[in-house]
Amino acid sequence: MSNLKYNFIGCDKPYEESDIVIFGAPYDGTASFRAGSRFAPDAVRLVSDAIETYSPYADVDIEEDFNICDAGNVEFSFGNRELALSEINKKAYEIINDDKKFLCIGGEHLVSLPLVQAVKEKYEDLVIIHLDAHADLRDDYLGEKLSHATVMRRVSELVGIENIFQFGIRSGTRDEFNLMRDANTLDREISSVISVIENKPVYLTLDVDILDPSIMPGTGTPEAGGWTFVRILNFINSIRGLNIVSADVVEIAPDYDLSGNSSVTGAKLCREVLALL
Amino acid sequence: MSNLKYNFIGCDKPYEESDIVIFGAPYDGTASFRAGSRFAPDAVRLVSDAIETYSPYADVDIEEDFNICDAGNVEFSFGNRELALSEINKKAYEIINDDKKFLCIGGEHLVSLPLVQAVKEKYEDLVIIHLDAHADLRDDYLGEKLSHATVMRRVSELVGIENIFQFGIRSGTRDEFNLMRDANTLDREISSVISVIENKPVYLTLDVDILDPSIMPGTGTPEAGGWTFVRILNFINSIRGLNIVSADVVEIAPDYDLSGNSSVTGAKLCREVLALL
Amino acid sequence: MSNLKYNFIGCDKPYEESDIVIFGAPYDGTASFRAGSRFAPDAVRLVSDAIETYSPYADVDIEEDFNICDAGNVEFSFGNRELALSEINKKAYEIINDDKKFLCIGGEHLVSLPLVQAVKEKYEDLVIIHLDAHADLRDDYLGEKLSHATVMRRVSELVGIENIFQFGIRSGTRDEFNLMRDANTLDREISSVISVIENKPVYLTLDVDILDPSIMPGTGTPEAGGWTFVRILNFINSIRGLNIVSADVVEIAPDYDLSGNSSVTGAKLCREVLALL
Amino acid sequence: MSNLKYNFIGCDKPYEESDIVIFGAPYDGTASFRAGSRFAPDAVRLVSDAIETYSPYADVDIEEDFNICDAGNVEFSFGNRELALSEINKKAYEIINDDKKFLCIGGEHLVSLPLVQAVKEKYEDLVIIHLDAHADLRDDYLGEKLSHATVMRRVSELVGIENIFQFGIRSGTRDEFNLMRDANTLDREISSVISVIENKPVYLTLDVDILDPSIMPGTGTPEAGGWTFVRILNFINSIRGLNIVSADVVEIAPDYDLSGNSSVTGAKLCREVLALL
Amino acid sequence: MSNLKYNFIGCDKPYEESDIVIFGAPYDGTASFRAGSRFAPDAVRLVSDAIETYSPYADVDIEEDFNICDAGNVEFSFGNRELALSEINKKAYEIINDDKKFLCIGGEHLVSLPLVQAVKEKYEDLVIIHLDAHADLRDDYLGEKLSHATVMRRVSELVGIENIFQFGIRSGTRDEFNLMRDANTLDREISSVISVIENKPVYLTLDVDILDPSIMPGTGTPEAGGWTFVRILNFINSIRGLNIVSADVVEIAPDYDLSGNSSVTGAKLCREVLALL
Amino acid sequence: MSNLKYNFIGCDKPYEESDIVIFGAPYDGTASFRAGSRFAPDAVRLVSDAIETYSPYADVDIEEDFNICDAGNVEFSFGNRELALSEINKKAYEIINDDKKFLCIGGEHLVSLPLVQAVKEKYEDLVIIHLDAHADLRDDYLGEKLSHATVMRRVSELVGIENIFQFGIRSGTRDEFNLMRDANTLDREISSVISVIENKPVYLTLDVDILDPSIMPGTGTPEAGGWTFVRILNFINSIRGLNIVSADVVEIAPDYDLSGNSSVTGAKLCREVLALL
Repeated sequence: MSNLKYNFIGCDKPYEESDIVIFGAPYDGTASFRAGSRFAPDAVRLVSDAIETYSPYADVDIEEDFNICDAGNVEFSFGNRELALSEINKKAYEIINDDKKFLCIGGEHLVSLPLVQAVKEKYEDLVIIHLDAHADLRDDYLGEKLSHATVMRRVSELVGIENIFQFGIRSGTRDEFNLMRDANTLDREISSVISVIENKPVYLTLDVDILDPSIMPGTGTPEAGGWTFVRILNFINSIRGLNIVSADVVEIAPDYDLSGNSSVTGAKLCREVLALL
Repeated sequence: MSNLKYNFIGCDKPYEESDIVIFGAPYDGTASFRAGSRFAPDAVRLVSDAIETYSPYADVDIEEDFNICDAGNVEFSFGNRELALSEINKKAYEIINDDKKFLCIGGEHLVSLPLVQAVKEKYEDLVIIHLDAHADLRDDYLGEKLSHATVMRRVSELVGIENIFQFGIRSGTRDEFNLMRDANTLDREISSVISVIENKPVYLTLDVDILDPSIMPGTGTPEAGGWTFVRILNFINSIRGLNIVSADVVEIAPDYDLSGNSSVTGAKLCREVLALL
Repeated sequence: MSNLKYNFIGCDKPYEESDIVIFGAPYDGTASFRAGSRFAPDAVRLVSDAIETYSPYADVDIEEDFNICDAGNVEFSFGNRELALSEINKKAYEIINDDKKFLCIGGEHLVSLPLVQAVKEKYEDLVIIHLDAHADLRDDYLGEKLSHATVMRRVSELVGIENIFQFGIRSGTRDEFNLMRDANTLDREISSVISVIENKPVYLTLDVDILDPSIMPGTGTPEAGGWTFVRILNFINSIRGLNIVSADVVEIAPDYDLSGNSSVTGAKLCREVLALL
Repeated sequence: MSNLKYNFIGCDKPYEESDIVIFGAPYDGTASFRAGSRFAPDAVRLVSDAIETYSPYADVDIEEDFNICDAGNVEFSFGNRELALSEINKKAYEIINDDKKFLCIGGEHLVSLPLVQAVKEKYEDLVIIHLDAHADLRDDYLGEKLSHATVMRRVSELVGIENIFQFGIRSGTRDEFNLMRDANTLDREISSVISVIENKPVYLTLDVDILDPSIMPGTGTPEAGGWTFVRILNFINSIRGLNIVSADVVEIAPDYDLSGNSSVTGAKLCREVLALL
Repeated sequence: MSNLKYNFIGCDKPYEESDIVIFGAPYDGTASFRAGSRFAPDAVRLVSDAIETYSPYADVDIEEDFNICDAGNVEFSFGNRELALSEINKKAYEIINDDKKFLCIGGEHLVSLPLVQAVKEKYEDLVIIHLDAHADLRDDYLGEKLSHATVMRRVSELVGIENIFQFGIRSGTRDEFNLMRDANTLDREISSVISVIENKPVYLTLDVDILDPSIMPGTGTPEAGGWTFVRILNFINSIRGLNIVSADVVEIAPDYDLSGNSSVTGAKLCREVLALL
Repeated sequence: MSNLKYNFIGCDKPYEESDIVIFGAPYDGTASFRAGSRFAPDAVRLVSDAIETYSPYADVDIEEDFNICDAGNVEFSFGNRELALSEINKKAYEIINDDKKFLCIGGEHLVSLPLVQAVKEKYEDLVIIHLDAHADLRDDYLGEKLSHATVMRRVSELVGIENIFQFGIRSGTRDEFNLMRDANTLDREISSVISVIENKPVYLTLDVDILDPSIMPGTGTPEAGGWTFVRILNFINSIRGLNIVSADVVEIAPDYDLSGNSSVTGAKLCREVLALL
């Protein structure tokens, strides 16, 4: 009799029959400015009814054309960073080892580290596409090695900085910008990126603050001068041929957008990333 | 593998094994000032994690001591008032006829009409306890017979005005106040009410605007000078001996309280009403 | 002695001496996600003092160069969809039959149906220009024929789908997009549109969610990836030669933009549409 | 044909036939913490539809039982304090000299000064009842003699401090509290106040921050520990026998209460003060 | 030339000459519902200009009558719970060992643990007065021993549960309430509390959610049915004779009260606690 | 021991050793629509931690590469326009006469008048670059000569209208636009502007409402159709060779952007202007 349901729109297949699994990683413990991305997975699911399952950009209906399961959120108590990361890693590992892809909704950007660790175990030659306003390449942040501001440095130690392609970054220290210039990670021509990557497995990590704060006001560290939504749609379209094996969408902080629109826009972004997987 | 769940806290028993069923009736089509109570059932469920299942007021744990099912929301399209009311009536009727009690989360106050109709079918001598800031006794509102401003007039035609006991009302036309004075429905001594009702079946309809807008800012028609939360707790305690057969909690409009606190307070109110059933 | 006034800025001529009439149609009863467009006409009038009567884009001062009356809002009770639509139709019919043009501020998009019906009575060969994020071409929505999600389907039955020109649409079902592709209604070159329409009477229906939610956060169903304000100004300029006989601006939901800016932007949009009439 | 209206609910009589005139004085230029009370008169009118014209507390219907005109707002440009005060004084003087009473909606508390000046011209032995959280008795504020923080000191120079009766004050400097203790102005027994005042003409100035900020969050200088709404209703009732010749309600700052409830509560307060005049 | 200052109002004495030190502990890492109390110390300081330095309740001016230093915030990176707690402990220890008292503004309630540890080192027979809506007596919370939900259990292990006096608690598990009943910690008569404590050193920990959410909407875990502000003023007054050696005010979450009033009310509460030290 | 600090990020040098001084002018007394820019200097400082001191656009680190002092706010009471302007003028004059440059954070646009007066005393042949949505060229506004709507007219009387270069203006009366067309002040080619100005001293006045309200919702008079943040970055870059002697950034109204993002964006804008000085 009950019609109680709560999955992301169109993601209602059983886990066993699914090719893609969407799940939430509501950890925001190292956020240095504003926390609250912990509420993103639930907020995005709740408003996902406001968008369609059909993407006119990809001509794909994620409900009709795909088999996607919504596996809920990873659970952990707040305050214990190491435990939270390990639980997130476990969930991602499980999905990858069942030969499925995942889309993880963060949470802050640090959740990408255990996610990449899980994917890297299976895909030796993993390449990272990193969309963000911030470099996230500090070696430590106020003494801490594990932080949303150091996450891409840790990821680079896992996969090699030559395997990271960064887009949209417009904030960082002079050291971080020098590092990006030296390693040539930043805003390379998309055609050259594609020819370098070829058919290597790609992990896409999408920090929503790559978007201009006008479009995504609900985020932890807003940074003016960002991409329009149309630009990110075009970017997603331009990499459609790549072998993307999993992805995350992080740093939506719903409580800082009182219109609720950041969650709706986040849901649309998730739909487009699902259509890419 | 999934831990996807979304029920009101502690209300996770299967329908068949439940004595009480909680469900949502997200209709707000006749709201004359501000709409938005349609979002109440989902908003209340989502934040219900912020309260405990244990009520220190009633010394009851709704999860451990009761068997409660969360049956989700009645579904209907917006714009067709008659159809929405009939779907809500059907759901209530089904539960009542399975010998269960219900707590319905509105939605605007008009949803109480189809709910009372369903309960009245089974309980011939039904009595209504009506908590509200507004009399809701107009015969019509701008020509309409079915409105949140006329709902108690329609209910009185079903059960007889002598079977309605109203509390907290502080807004209405002169005609409505004259009617309440003539019929002696308003703010009677609780002990006299109990001795009149005895063990007759009671339906409790609780419009949250009985509370002062300071406590429940997220409501459609705020009316200053209302009850404190402690006062409503005391009231609930004072009628604990009555034979309450079902209830509703209506007119929470979450979007008008940007702190989210109205939903949390609404969840606590629902827990206390569940502990009363 | 009283200086009490409340009209849209610059629209203070008596009805009899006016060529254009602005009025509000505060109906939002079928809104499926967020209601609240009922508050748009009053909110837009109240903040219209924050803009000038002079449009530098059109080099027109709507107060000095035009005779415009603000006829207030159509009145009806909420909850009775058919009655509300019929009252809106009556008001539009009256204005059209007094040989005036109107600009109606919604309300939700369904109000365009009775407006188009009124205009169509006088202008047999009416053509529709439809600016929107959503196709609104469903045949029914959850069983309902009259809904903000079906309004353009109903309009197409009145005027013929070949007489509808749609712009900005980026959300719909696969069926709706197939219909638009088959009928070639979507995003046609403006010069070709002009040469097809010639001097036929044109009705302009402008759902503000055509704008990106960053620019118009206060709307019922925000859809990322929309037009900038400059783009809509350019569009308005490009159709200035057409014979536009009336227009509506719908789906502003002021309560979802707490800065109040959506109302101010809505007022500016109304001024530019008035300058077009 | 137009139904355009915008007066405070029930205040729609022509000026000539009215006994009471309501008008707005939207000046907030000396607000030291938060400005915005300039928006109060319009905001209160706009939501006044959400309350009834009938007061169950006074058993009075302000539309049926009284003749009240809404004379709109005093107009002036911002930045010129002296001119604004003089325009407000002129309006009040005009009403008083037409043998009417007024209720002025502020604006900040400084507007009470020109209002009292106008009333004092006619009523030589004027007495002031002052409801407020703040003493407002500084001789100057950062060097300024005319400020919302000095207004009652200026008023005391007009009417004599022995003719001021203050209630609810819980914030001030040590000097201000010493002054109030010496002059015995504060929180005197209501019965003793009545027997002192007898039938002298009374001006009531009501700074809404006397209410607890929970009830009136939208105010310039919130001060916790204030009156409940019920308490102010009781106070109003207790002075119903006095000869109140005019009144003001000041310091509502609508933009700081995003629920809009402060304006609705302000409207109810105005209705109760009107029922007292 | 610079007038740049930023201390809590009236707390501008040099550290060496001060008897009382106010400082911030912006840690909110274990918040289970809403984070954001990290912003409290700065938000409270910034609005403290809106209150006076003079308390009419205590007849004390904290600037004129006391020597108070504002020592700024303890600094640490987010994400490392143990390090943050140890830094907070170090700061408190330093102040206590310089024979001063402190008032610490949290942060979440877990910061009370390192604060009590520092005070207990000096004051062997320390007694705790605990004002809160929540028992905070769980042994662990989702497996974690150090959490805002377990903090008073940890404190009880330090000082003995017989030395804890709790007030205002209205939320907890059945186990927590049983523990409080067995140990008789809850809501004891204030006179009996005073006669038990005598002149023992007292630490006051004040979780602002003891207040009703209407008064303090900006808090992490709102719980309806709380104290009024007047009640807490009375409570503070009733314990004025005790030997209070230090205190904290925790769990203000400014971002959840968009009016900013929770910060102003928090500032007033801090002033009253300072006047008590 | 104290780490209490509150300067704009990276602006922590002593006044004597500084080349550039940042200070606040929190005056908003003539704001005709919404006030609140008085809160901008403090709000911008408080969130400036959320941006980096390094600008990747200019390859400049304002902390490492520059010597900048934050001199706090000019202090004055509200309500006395002439006194406030004179205090602001005095502060600017002092800095200019110490052979330093300043960046003043408003306040409303009228503060530019005393700032320009101070700079003009030293730099006889001063040229003004004016970025704004509004012409601000009225001769008087509701009779007032000194207003945020007349400020550039007053400035033109100081420096000559031929020395004013305006960009981004999209709102004004017909008279104002005629004046701008006649004097050719508006939106001239940047290369021609540079060749006209040559090495004359330039004052830059930046009203943030030149930005689209989507990017800067927190402003007094939002005007749709504005510049993107990228466009203003490009503009700043294009004038990097000019001899800019001082600047202001005005009209940020933090309370109208509840996400806080307008303040963060304002901080970034200030950093880019500092990097230009």
